[in-house]
Amino acid sequence: MSQSPFIQPSDNATITAADTGNVFHSWSAQAGLAPMPIASGSGVKVWDFDGNEYLDFSSQLVNVNIGYQHPAVVTAIQEQAARLATVGPAYANDARAKAAQKILEHAPEGMQKIFFTNAGADANENAIRMARLHTGRDKVLSLYRSYHGNTGAAIVATGDWRRVPNEFARGHVHAFGPYLYRSEFWASTAEEESARALHHLERIVQAEGPSSIAAMLFETIPGTAGVLMPPPGYLHGVREICDRYGIILILDEVMAGFGRTGAWLALDNFDVRPDLVTFAKGVNSGYVPAGGVMISEAISKTFDDRVFPGGLTYSGHPLAMASIVATIEAMEQEKIVENAATIGETVIGPRLAAMAERLDVIGEVRGIGVFWAIELVADAETREMLPASEMGAIKKALMAHGLLPFLADNRIHVVPPAVITADEAETGLAIIEKVLSER
Amino acid sequence: MSQSPFIQPSDNATITAADTGNVFHSWSAQAGLAPMPIASGSGVKVWDFDGNEYLDFSSQLVNVNIGYQHPAVVTAIQEQAARLATVGPAYANDARAKAAQKILEHAPEGMQKIFFTNAGADANENAIRMARLHTGRDKVLSLYRSYHGNTGAAIVATGDWRRVPNEFARGHVHAFGPYLYRSEFWASTAEEESARALHHLERIVQAEGPSSIAAMLFETIPGTAGVLMPPPGYLHGVREICDRYGIILILDEVMAGFGRTGAWLALDNFDVRPDLVTFAKGVNSGYVPAGGVMISEAISKTFDDRVFPGGLTYSGHPLAMASIVATIEAMEQEKIVENAATIGETVIGPRLAAMAERLDVIGEVRGIGVFWAIELVADAETREMLPASEMGAIKKALMAHGLLPFLADNRIHVVPPAVITADEAETGLAIIEKVLSER
Ligand SMILES: Cc1ncc(COP(=O)(O)O)c(C=O)c1O
Ligand SMILES: Cc1ncc(COP(=O)(O)O)c(C=O)c1O
Repeated sequence: MSQSPFIQPSDNATITAADTGNVFHSWSAQAGLAPMPIASGSGVKVWDFDGNEYLDFSSQLVNVNIGYQHPAVVTAIQEQAARLATVGPAYANDARAKAAQKILEHAPEGMQKIFFTNAGADANENAIRMARLHTGRDKVLSLYRSYHGNTGAAIVATGDWRRVPNEFARGHVHAFGPYLYRSEFWASTAEEESARALHHLERIVQAEGPSSIAAMLFETIPGTAGVLMPPPGYLHGVREICDRYGIILILDEVMAGFGRTGAWLALDNFDVRPDLVTFAKGVNSGYVPAGGVMISEAISKTFDDRVFPGGLTYSGHPLAMASIVATIEAMEQEKIVENAATIGETVIGPRLAAMAERLDVIGEVRGIGVFWAIELVADAETREMLPASEMGAIKKALMAHGLLPFLADNRIHVVPPAVITADEAETGLAIIEKVLSER
Repeated sequence: MSQSPFIQPSDNATITAADTGNVFHSWSAQAGLAPMPIASGSGVKVWDFDGNEYLDFSSQLVNVNIGYQHPAVVTAIQEQAARLATVGPAYANDARAKAAQKILEHAPEGMQKIFFTNAGADANENAIRMARLHTGRDKVLSLYRSYHGNTGAAIVATGDWRRVPNEFARGHVHAFGPYLYRSEFWASTAEEESARALHHLERIVQAEGPSSIAAMLFETIPGTAGVLMPPPGYLHGVREICDRYGIILILDEVMAGFGRTGAWLALDNFDVRPDLVTFAKGVNSGYVPAGGVMISEAISKTFDDRVFPGGLTYSGHPLAMASIVATIEAMEQEKIVENAATIGETVIGPRLAAMAERLDVIGEVRGIGVFWAIELVADAETREMLPASEMGAIKKALMAHGLLPFLADNRIHVVPPAVITADEAETGLAIIEKVLSER
């Protein structure tokens, strides 16, 4: 491991102690946490405070698509900070108008406006709100294997009029999505899985009452759930069901969007047309908290003369907006999306396929671009998941070899920044193969 | 109006057109919106793109407590951007540990850890989650005249296990809080209002079933609802009711906290001890989206060995953290909180009281520090609110005189940055008096 180019005023032990003494962590029991300290990064590499270097195969929470410390984005943030660090959502601002324009340039046909939020959760909140008010219907249908964010109460706690049109966390219905390797539909081919998943979805729509369903909220490619690539025809079929019953289709591109799949949006890989698209993460690689909703013309029009009852203090925050503009422009100029596609096709895909041939512990590999999952099994026949204890040991071993991994359940997600080179990808994949071979 | 010191590459008309063509706005019907463009600011002043100057009596959404473009905070953001612009919540980082420490230095006694969020809504989301899991109870009691944020569905749309412990937007109960000028309790003195509001609250607790109530979520001083100063003994009495029935007290300091009232937290003005405190806005003046929860030792301990089922991608974002540290240090060094107290006591308070004497249209003035409301009435006797059309005309007139106001219902909120000087406060108050006199 090489030395960090940054002189840090501290060391790992000091930072970890200061952290655990004061900071309450997400999704964890707090006792015995020993979070790894990160001091800085560059491209696909990060350094801790002792100067150890890691190759990032996680993109943090699958957000640093453009890599660490991209100079154009850093400069844009610094310049906007020097000009205007904060402005309320009711005002107009150049950075905000430009960010909306840049996003619309990469949006699917028919998208007309952008509503900005702080992150992914509140993007989905506002998309759900729009769909409910646009349709006058109540229920929201999403998949069991999905993650859409962590919010569910603040507007209902609110006492003033803003609560009344927003008492929304009711009428959520869940269905199973396609996942051939662990089919819920006794399917044995991708075509069968697709057709049966669509049949199941339509039966749920009918059983819930089609006229009660405002929206389907689907990750284009369910991410944390395992990079579950939709089989041929599935998303197209979902759109058809939506059309048949007057249901709004919201595609959640928070994790899959903005280059991750080797396309600007994951939906560009499929024959599907959404009414609303939610985004965050890749739109500015998380350099400043930001998210939002792309809104179709029809839904946009609904709120021309009718108040949209939603908002937030930092909607369209100028630092976030400046970072979005710089990120998208850099991705265009440096062909970062194209790079993600090439790396996926020529390096990650073939290499993982070969690994899966060689190693029994790999049950399946799947993905696209720089968005892949390796599913690890204790038994190739029964497909029993590798237990948590073994996953913990694998994580430790990967980190000892200088790889920062993203693990979920029995899977290693291969989700490096989209700027990764073929060499860097090879290096990381070799570490994974070594660790899996030696266990 | 003087010229902006910043050369802008545009003008008002261009920016407003670019905005309304692409950006979808909060809490509004979209047709006919003409948002005022803001190009930059400094201290308590902002400039539009035509170079017009405004004195800000709104602090945007009551968040820019430290004023615009404070050099220490801008520099801290720029330096952190140069070092590390993004890092996931599972890692440790120096900026995050330090921000938590600085907040805890100003927290009420007994607070042990900080959970960071992106803003105020998700701070309340996570405080509610903690209270429900800590008590094993369900209901959340808050006030009708309150605002706690705009989220209410994303976790319930989520399909994976993270949904299950979080299906929370149920069991929200609302009570009336004290507001002597428009008493819900037929009270005629502050003491009577306080006692009767407490009686009403306790009766609701008893009628809902005390053992079903997890938390009371109260703004220490309801803000957007009208800077409703709690009468003597009220918050102390709320704490006593919470203690009597084993209910968690969450104080929402999103708007009232971090200097707004001339104290570090609004709760410092009252004899009350919360279990959880939510914050955002003033903690870093909104220079980067950030919020969070201060967590008592007892609640913190609940999650030592039990997973806290909440989190978000940008929890403890490094740019936000660096801006929090710099903001709190600047507020300490420059005695900004003390300034807010002095301006409230010596300028805003006396001047508004005198104005209320002179002008029949003013029904009541109330507030503390740089957190005041002027309640405007069509009839001093019946207290009928001044209608929306007249409020619109007042807003226009204030802006024509170079004042950026915060209007809500029939009220002008006097909520300038906490760095305002006596002279600047006098200037703004004189504009308000002139506009109200000439109508
Ligand atoms: C698909 C998807 N939607 C929404 C979210 C929530 O985003 P955030 O954590 O920024 O609220 C995530 C986060 O991982 C996600 O992966
Ligand atoms: C008291 C209070 N709580 C919560 C919020 C929500 O904060 P945010 O808009 O940052 O989500 C606000 C916003 O005005 C507020 O005033």
